[in-house]
Amino acid sequence: MSKNIQKLTLHPDRLFSSDDKVIEVARKLYEKVKDLPIISPHGHTDPSWFADNNNFENAADLLIRPDHYVFRMLYSQGISLESLGIPQHGEKGDLAGSRQVDPQSIWQIFADNYHLFAGTPSGYWLDATFSNVFGFTDKLCNENATEYYNEINKQLATPEFKPHALMDRFNIELIATTEGALDQLPHHRKLKDSAFAKRVITSFRPDDVVDASREDFKQNVAKLAELTGEDTSDWHGYLAAIRQRRAYFKEHGRATATDHGHPTALTANLNEQQCQALLDKALAGTATETEQELFRGQLLTELAGMSIEDGLVMQIHPGAHRNHNQGLFERYGRDKGADIPSQTEYVNALKPLLAKYGNDPRLDIILFTLDETTYSRELAPLAGHYPSLKLGPAWWFHDSPAGMLRFRQQTTETAGFYNTVGFNDDTRAFLSIPARHDVARRVDCRYLAELVTNHQITLGEAHTLAYELTYGLVKQAYKL
Amino acid sequence: MSKNIQKLTLHPDRLFSSDDKVIEVARKLYEKVKDLPIISPHGHTDPSWFADNNNFENAADLLIRPDHYVFRMLYSQGISLESLGIPQHGEKGDLAGSRQVDPQSIWQIFADNYHLFAGTPSGYWLDATFSNVFGFTDKLCNENATEYYNEINKQLATPEFKPHALMDRFNIELIATTEGALDQLPHHRKLKDSAFAKRVITSFRPDDVVDASREDFKQNVAKLAELTGEDTSDWHGYLAAIRQRRAYFKEHGRATATDHGHPTALTANLNEQQCQALLDKALAGTATETEQELFRGQLLTELAGMSIEDGLVMQIHPGAHRNHNQGLFERYGRDKGADIPSQTEYVNALKPLLAKYGNDPRLDIILFTLDETTYSRELAPLAGHYPSLKLGPAWWFHDSPAGMLRFRQQTTETAGFYNTVGFNDDTRAFLSIPARHDVARRVDCRYLAELVTNHQITLGEAHTLAYELTYGLVKQAYKL
Amino acid sequence: MSKNIQKLTLHPDRLFSSDDKVIEVARKLYEKVKDLPIISPHGHTDPSWFADNNNFENAADLLIRPDHYVFRMLYSQGISLESLGIPQHGEKGDLAGSRQVDPQSIWQIFADNYHLFAGTPSGYWLDATFSNVFGFTDKLCNENATEYYNEINKQLATPEFKPHALMDRFNIELIATTEGALDQLPHHRKLKDSAFAKRVITSFRPDDVVDASREDFKQNVAKLAELTGEDTSDWHGYLAAIRQRRAYFKEHGRATATDHGHPTALTANLNEQQCQALLDKALAGTATETEQELFRGQLLTELAGMSIEDGLVMQIHPGAHRNHNQGLFERYGRDKGADIPSQTEYVNALKPLLAKYGNDPRLDIILFTLDETTYSRELAPLAGHYPSLKLGPAWWFHDSPAGMLRFRQQTTETAGFYNTVGFNDDTRAFLSIPARHDVARRVDCRYLAELVTNHQITLGEAHTLAYELTYGLVKQAYKL
Repeated sequence: MSKNIQKLTLHPDRLFSSDDKVIEVARKLYEKVKDLPIISPHGHTDPSWFADNNNFENAADLLIRPDHYVFRMLYSQGISLESLGIPQHGEKGDLAGSRQVDPQSIWQIFADNYHLFAGTPSGYWLDATFSNVFGFTDKLCNENATEYYNEINKQLATPEFKPHALMDRFNIELIATTEGALDQLPHHRKLKDSAFAKRVITSFRPDDVVDASREDFKQNVAKLAELTGEDTSDWHGYLAAIRQRRAYFKEHGRATATDHGHPTALTANLNEQQCQALLDKALAGTATETEQELFRGQLLTELAGMSIEDGLVMQIHPGAHRNHNQGLFERYGRDKGADIPSQTEYVNALKPLLAKYGNDPRLDIILFTLDETTYSRELAPLAGHYPSLKLGPAWWFHDSPAGMLRFRQQTTETAGFYNTVGFNDDTRAFLSIPARHDVARRVDCRYLAELVTNHQITLGEAHTLAYELTYGLVKQAYKL
Repeated sequence: MSKNIQKLTLHPDRLFSSDDKVIEVARKLYEKVKDLPIISPHGHTDPSWFADNNNFENAADLLIRPDHYVFRMLYSQGISLESLGIPQHGEKGDLAGSRQVDPQSIWQIFADNYHLFAGTPSGYWLDATFSNVFGFTDKLCNENATEYYNEINKQLATPEFKPHALMDRFNIELIATTEGALDQLPHHRKLKDSAFAKRVITSFRPDDVVDASREDFKQNVAKLAELTGEDTSDWHGYLAAIRQRRAYFKEHGRATATDHGHPTALTANLNEQQCQALLDKALAGTATETEQELFRGQLLTELAGMSIEDGLVMQIHPGAHRNHNQGLFERYGRDKGADIPSQTEYVNALKPLLAKYGNDPRLDIILFTLDETTYSRELAPLAGHYPSLKLGPAWWFHDSPAGMLRFRQQTTETAGFYNTVGFNDDTRAFLSIPARHDVARRVDCRYLAELVTNHQITLGEAHTLAYELTYGLVKQAYKL
Repeated sequence: MSKNIQKLTLHPDRLFSSDDKVIEVARKLYEKVKDLPIISPHGHTDPSWFADNNNFENAADLLIRPDHYVFRMLYSQGISLESLGIPQHGEKGDLAGSRQVDPQSIWQIFADNYHLFAGTPSGYWLDATFSNVFGFTDKLCNENATEYYNEINKQLATPEFKPHALMDRFNIELIATTEGALDQLPHHRKLKDSAFAKRVITSFRPDDVVDASREDFKQNVAKLAELTGEDTSDWHGYLAAIRQRRAYFKEHGRATATDHGHPTALTANLNEQQCQALLDKALAGTATETEQELFRGQLLTELAGMSIEDGLVMQIHPGAHRNHNQGLFERYGRDKGADIPSQTEYVNALKPLLAKYGNDPRLDIILFTLDETTYSRELAPLAGHYPSLKLGPAWWFHDSPAGMLRFRQQTTETAGFYNTVGFNDDTRAFLSIPARHDVARRVDCRYLAELVTNHQITLGEAHTLAYELTYGLVKQAYKL
């Protein structure tokens, strides 16, 4: 049986292409950036990890159940979410509420199907984590699943695997979490006077109070009123309340950025009367889909104005069709791997915002996309012109070796390198963070090496650029 | 003169890239899959060939006149369809009806313009066919056209070139043809008790009875009533009639799949009353384009429901703007090389069907596209989530070396390999089938070899995957 | 300090990829085409340069201020247009009207920020121009800015840098400029009896008299009436006036082509009454945006009809959202680097025109795009079918090494090489013309070399094709 077990090795030249000339240059570039500290300016780790510094529980809870990249693939091949212990709606929302399923049996299913991840970034991140973080030397498979499970759990229980220790081991200089507008930031406040205060910051994500299509919108806006003492049924009061929360996030969470996960990139520039009317309808629950969209669009413009005032960098992540699988959504709720990208338009959508604020030197907007067709057609030309626009890295489904390469190949010639902002891991999978940043560094070095060997840039320029793409640009773009 | 004649040689490493490290791995992978039997689960060969086992007639009739890939290119360069013997509307529809043009003069025009095919898949398939099937060692050109023509005709007349002999020579384990819903499958029935019964099957393509935009829709539905004894003017009777035909295709044509060539991927989920109203209008010829579209969309959902009942795998081929060239259509009719892809949307379009049936473990849908932008944005995310969805291979204009490579590069990272279904040749050009499958095997081996040399998968994984992509996945996906 | 100065060298194998086998073949192909004369059939150089043959003024005026590729990048990084001497609206439109800013200070800003162009085609063209045209051996940087500036100005003042001398030095066999429909072509007429008459021709660009969304449309049409003596308020008179201007451009400007820069590729085929009604509204200033669009679309069809009559080749350049930056447009006017591509549809848009004229052997239309998604989906299939359609080269933002490669990779398999038309530089940056054509030749040779080393075409075919892509096809397509 054990002849089926394959060795797990991470080749030192992995992702550098197969071309020896490219590899040689990529190696030189990578050598200089591989040990630079990790800056993670956008992601979804749980701030309580850093505030409480408790050990993680077990392999399945840490690596499978919260990772929709992983369970979406298993689900696509006919493995039920029940068997993976994914809690259903009505069950307690947190994972701990759904302990009917033995974590070890979840792990076994995962191991039995590990071949599904061949050639995917998840497979790559997992292998790198197993090798680099836990020291495994055999690839995970059905035969060694138990061994893997026990070994991971054993290590997770040690002091070396507490979050603070891992922050140091992973060389994470800074990590930003993301919290909703109503969050009181207890974990970030707890960190306030600790050595980790500077290293763990939040980002302000107000989708819950600006997206009137949410079931809980009205409640959220009511809560916003409570928290701020503003009359949020009044357009001015509503904006003032949001302003207060931004200030709160800056003060108590050390936020330097906001984040906006809208279905589209639409922006609007309406007059006060129109805004009040939309707010009224949104709160009354009578807004049509188009009006909800317009309301979100107006808010993007308002939030850009606030960014000019308070200096928070604005991240726009449009284009996900959330919860596409209706049956699954009804049974399991949000974030169950059923978010599907859809075609996204930027040129007309952003025009109202840009017409109002696009030339203001105080404004910094970082644009993301799930629609790769916009790289060369819309995003690079926009970022290559407007001083307020920069391009975020390849996002989500495109946060992958080939995806990152396409990002550079399709944006660099028009936007250059200096209108981009380095890498985001955008993850809740804490243990995979080093692997993810390592992929980005390797792919960038490979891309630069190709330009060098094709005689498009010099090796000297490539060294400077490798540093900027890894460390320089992200600190500058996120004002860190 | 003869110094212009170039040698025709097929390099053993063709399509493996120029990189020696990649070539070396690709060779190893290819060595193990090159002789696996051909499974051709979707195509348009003529079932009478297999039922009657007669010799083919001549080179022009076999290789040029029925191949719209070939004559579209000639036409684009100003060569008239008349001169290629393409029958006009009103002439007998079958090729034999239009013998005004000497086949040899058609062949000469083709040979004179053979340089137009440099770098195209047609050129590649033709060269491979000339070399491997007929044994030519010089490239076709104006000077050797006659020699070629006579030699091909001579060989075509031999017993070794009868369809059954070629099935064996080509190592075709199974080939599926495609018939309309009203077809009585005489050729498949004739094969019933022969050794070829298992090797030649049909697919059920009901476009003629579900597409109300067709001139012959009303007649077709009337014929459907006749064949089944159902009242096809009643929504339930209409569906029951289609159900009967599916059963007929399973029984008499050994069908395991259906096929749907719709202009878009739209699906719908209407109530009975709405369905009856649409059917009424469709039959009365009063349905608007939007209603015709909605009707087709509703049918896709109904047909998915039937697939759950009877187990037929559903293939959806959307996105061709048929008969774009109006003048040509009026003079020559359908399928004259003037079908043009158009932008295709899947995420919203498929939602009604998926909301109803997408999580049913009994449903298998294979999605195709002519719009490559959907690979990474829509199709890979959908197939990487829904258990009912798989991705068909690069289709039609994209069934080409670079097209296939883009398919893998843009789908693998999100959907993996196991949500794909191997290769389809989708052709009526019988002699080119080995060449087409060979291209797919070579390109897949090359892609896998790149992953191996880039250290993203191991050689062992690559061997397993090469087998799956060539032989394993297609048998599983099409239930063969 | 001077240790920061990098050597400027142009590697002989640049842009040939890093693969030695590819490089070897690319070198052989390039060797045979590198010295072929330059044919520049579409561009925006100033015809007065060739008519008057005066020396250019200074480095900033020649290389920075008129080049929106250059100043858009600087602007995107927060450098104000004022500091670059870009004239504001109301100031005299020509560059000379805005001499508040010392050209040398503009040059210094440019040099200080030259690193922004790393990896961009502008960077590549500039380096090649500095090296090949001016003989610099160090890369431009903040330290040698003055030296560069003075040296360039010194050389610009010599007889060897007069336009005619440069035409010879650059081996430009023919260059086409582009003039609006109302232009009296004084410069082209001046050249009439000179040796340069055959080498400098115009193209007819009637956007100013067919685009009713322009502020000056009504005036332009009035001027059209004056020039031609036609009643341009009458549909027939209006068309007759345009016909006259085309004849004028043929006679006095030796035009062989027209050019159409429309927001979309829409065409229409309306009846006379509808046309007259649209013209009435357009002239009255009451046409809606949709009507203006329809009017432009109708004109494309009319202009195609005129091309059939007079033989002028039609170029369609759709898809730019002009003057996207509203604030900039208000202050600085048109063409300030704020044109952004937008999604462009061809299949439905061109159908009316193609239905009317698409099969006419006398019609030649060259299609361009800023939307790369249309290469494989729409444009290659259209050009691979319609005898009247050919594909223009990678345009504007995509006129770059990676952009050109994508063009070939995504069009060749469906359209072949013979439905393309060679290279256009499309530039007003006269000094960069050799560098731009050299990039195209290198990238084409590289692409062909990849096909050769991948055993898809023979070396003999590649040599033929390299010649065609460089010199043969452009002369044929533009009837030169």
